[in-house]
Amino acid sequence: MSKFRKINLDERQMPTSWYNIMADMPNKPQPMLHPATKQPVKLEDMTPLFPVELLKQEMSTERWIEIPEEVQDIYRVWRPTPLHRALNLEKALDTPARIYFKNESVSPAGSHKPNTAVAQAYYNYKEGVKRLTTETGAGQWGSALAYACDIFGLELQVFMVRVSYEQKPYRKMMMNTWNANVVPSPSSLTEAGRRILAEHPDSPGSLGIAISEAVEMAVKDPDTRYSLGSVLNHVLLHQTIIGQEAIKQMEMAGDFPDVVIGCFGGGSNFAGISFPFLRLKLTEGKKLRAIAVEPASCPKLTRGTFAYDFGDTVGMTPLIPMYTLGHNFIPAKIHAGGLRYHGAGAIVSQLLKDKIIEAVSIPQLETFEAGVLFARTEGIIPAPESTHAIAAAIREAKKAKEEGVSKTILFNLSGHGVIDLAAYDQYFSGKLENYAISDEEIQNSLKELQPVNV
Amino acid sequence: MSKFRKINLDERQMPTSWYNIMADMPNKPQPMLHPATKQPVKLEDMTPLFPVELLKQEMSTERWIEIPEEVQDIYRVWRPTPLHRALNLEKALDTPARIYFKNESVSPAGSHKPNTAVAQAYYNYKEGVKRLTTETGAGQWGSALAYACDIFGLELQVFMVRVSYEQKPYRKMMMNTWNANVVPSPSSLTEAGRRILAEHPDSPGSLGIAISEAVEMAVKDPDTRYSLGSVLNHVLLHQTIIGQEAIKQMEMAGDFPDVVIGCFGGGSNFAGISFPFLRLKLTEGKKLRAIAVEPASCPKLTRGTFAYDFGDTVGMTPLIPMYTLGHNFIPAKIHAGGLRYHGAGAIVSQLLKDKIIEAVSIPQLETFEAGVLFARTEGIIPAPESTHAIAAAIREAKKAKEEGVSKTILFNLSGHGVIDLAAYDQYFSGKLENYAISDEEIQNSLKELQPVNV
Repeated sequence: MSKFRKINLDERQMPTSWYNIMADMPNKPQPMLHPATKQPVKLEDMTPLFPVELLKQEMSTERWIEIPEEVQDIYRVWRPTPLHRALNLEKALDTPARIYFKNESVSPAGSHKPNTAVAQAYYNYKEGVKRLTTETGAGQWGSALAYACDIFGLELQVFMVRVSYEQKPYRKMMMNTWNANVVPSPSSLTEAGRRILAEHPDSPGSLGIAISEAVEMAVKDPDTRYSLGSVLNHVLLHQTIIGQEAIKQMEMAGDFPDVVIGCFGGGSNFAGISFPFLRLKLTEGKKLRAIAVEPASCPKLTRGTFAYDFGDTVGMTPLIPMYTLGHNFIPAKIHAGGLRYHGAGAIVSQLLKDKIIEAVSIPQLETFEAGVLFARTEGIIPAPESTHAIAAAIREAKKAKEEGVSKTILFNLSGHGVIDLAAYDQYFSGKLENYAISDEEIQNSLKELQPVNV
Repeated sequence: MSKFRKINLDERQMPTSWYNIMADMPNKPQPMLHPATKQPVKLEDMTPLFPVELLKQEMSTERWIEIPEEVQDIYRVWRPTPLHRALNLEKALDTPARIYFKNESVSPAGSHKPNTAVAQAYYNYKEGVKRLTTETGAGQWGSALAYACDIFGLELQVFMVRVSYEQKPYRKMMMNTWNANVVPSPSSLTEAGRRILAEHPDSPGSLGIAISEAVEMAVKDPDTRYSLGSVLNHVLLHQTIIGQEAIKQMEMAGDFPDVVIGCFGGGSNFAGISFPFLRLKLTEGKKLRAIAVEPASCPKLTRGTFAYDFGDTVGMTPLIPMYTLGHNFIPAKIHAGGLRYHGAGAIVSQLLKDKIIEAVSIPQLETFEAGVLFARTEGIIPAPESTHAIAAAIREAKKAKEEGVSKTILFNLSGHGVIDLAAYDQYFSGKLENYAISDEEIQNSLKELQPVNV
């Protein structure tokens, strides 16, 4: 097949297991530590927050974990997603590179997030949980979980980072449509929120703060559990259906990626596209580069430190071995709300430390420039998060042109930006900033990192 | 295949011709009349407005019209679109009916409109036109044409009905992203607009007024042509790719619709899904009902009159033989902006007159109730226009339950409602009205219809 524009899979070709990269990592991540005892957390420590099945997945080293029938059934509402060849973008760049993208924007909530939301809602429902709490940045995760909870009849309380709550009012309406309650974070619903509001009444919020609030509320009620949209191993696991589909589709295209690219917040979207390909690298010696793309204003992978740090701002979560800017780091108000997170998941951090993957950071204006070119060539207005992957793909395609070499680039289009159009409006009217960050700011932020002896 | 959720076609299965129902109609529509001479319009009368190829299609009675390679190539950016089985909706309704929907929301602009936008932009580009003008209601058509013009390097001036311009700010931003200029209509850019503003400074606008403005601007500049998103024969023609794909997909599902349903503004979305099925009814004697669904507040098909009327408000277009509420009719401010049009296309009007199709009108609140149920079951938030088709499908499914009969229902999901979320917000807070319309209002509006002797 040549010069096709996209490859669809039939429902019956949808993968039936998730891929757990823990099985194939040369060095497994260090264990998470209990915030009080500083000892490795045990499954029982976490049951107030998560259902047992998800905790088993969190700690599993089995290579393949079967996707429950009920979850597969809901996946089929939108999956398998198409793989596109970005022919018009290639033409606009006049590049010898072949650019492919996996289109996760076709899901109910408009992003890859429902892949784990549906799975998490399902396991909670199966264990009799009545209510979930969660945080959300730009709202992609919150709306995905709202959809999933509505399907399985669970209540949902969403803490939405205040800056995004104000930037993206339609996200709240979308979550309400799927029956969720949404408040801006920091809120007065929790002790954590009230404490932060007392100190910083104008706090724009951050994912770290919102997580503190959601965790606090879940811990206090035995019928309530907490749900996280990224960072944790089981969340990354659920996203691997993306890359597994992409492998089949690339085979049908008669091609294989030299470079696999995903934007990076906590790691779930990057893991989703790249881990199944990394399996081929780790177990079959396939050559490929995997690039995680973070915002220049929140550069934990490229300028942070590798340390034990909390997943939230207040310090309620276990300590995670991660690349981090410190849990008190409040990222600038970029529109890619899903990438405004101080740390990286343990697996991805270990892979980066072991040089199995690469990371790059890109400033906001370059990402919007890339997003506009993509919208004008491929017809999909990308989410601000996804524009980071596009910008990195464009850099790679331009390099291929300069070097005069052929190259196959695959990136994950994590979501559409229809609800983020106000951000494009600001870009066109010259109101967007790059939010450069100095070494001093980073050093100051890392100073606040409490040292942990292990 | 049983209990599948959707059927995708491969790109290579995409139809390569449009279907022209003129070839198979027992009674062809009466000719359009020149607004001044009241004689049948000739192709040459229309060349200031449209490129020759589109005018040939407008008057053609050939059954199949080949889709140009370049148009097929752009179609493949998002086509073929999926056919879904609405299993969760069926379950929620506890109906014996099988409900299918064709999902046109996956296009760049989020609706079926790019099917004709791309074709129209292409033919204009081929004939050396530099610039297009158009009107848009809710913005679905304007954004589709913005995308299409950007692909072929044409400039675009959009007149957006003022009420929608204010209700749906993201639509303007979307059009801007694809390089179009957008003004609220009535505007001060045209004589027609200025005249209406002088009389009604607070005019909410209407599709009829916006058409007057767009036509006026096109006529005044030899490098500019006009483009219409519905009503005309060639526009309906381009949409027939929807129904042709659906026929293949229903075959793959091993099923055939008893009822085919589309929402109705000017007729393009209804024609797109139904005309290819009507071919099987007209030429092969297949039994099926085709139902056009209009808003109760703009009921030209169910409560209007069949007469020659102008396509616009000011009276610049040819006279069209149509079901109409009169070209001065200003519909209530319902959120389904694309259905706020006083008349119906000539072909659909003739089919209704000949009882080959049916029509039904549904009040706004029932359509939103249907839209919310659909979002909560099938995961797609539908456009306010599309909720009309959903509401009619639900009525049919409930009737099947009452009668205890099996039935196959197919409707066209014309677009997603992500940009219309503010309408859902209003619905949830009880701020939406039904906008009932009295017989007297309709009679008064029809009185203004200038009688035309032919």
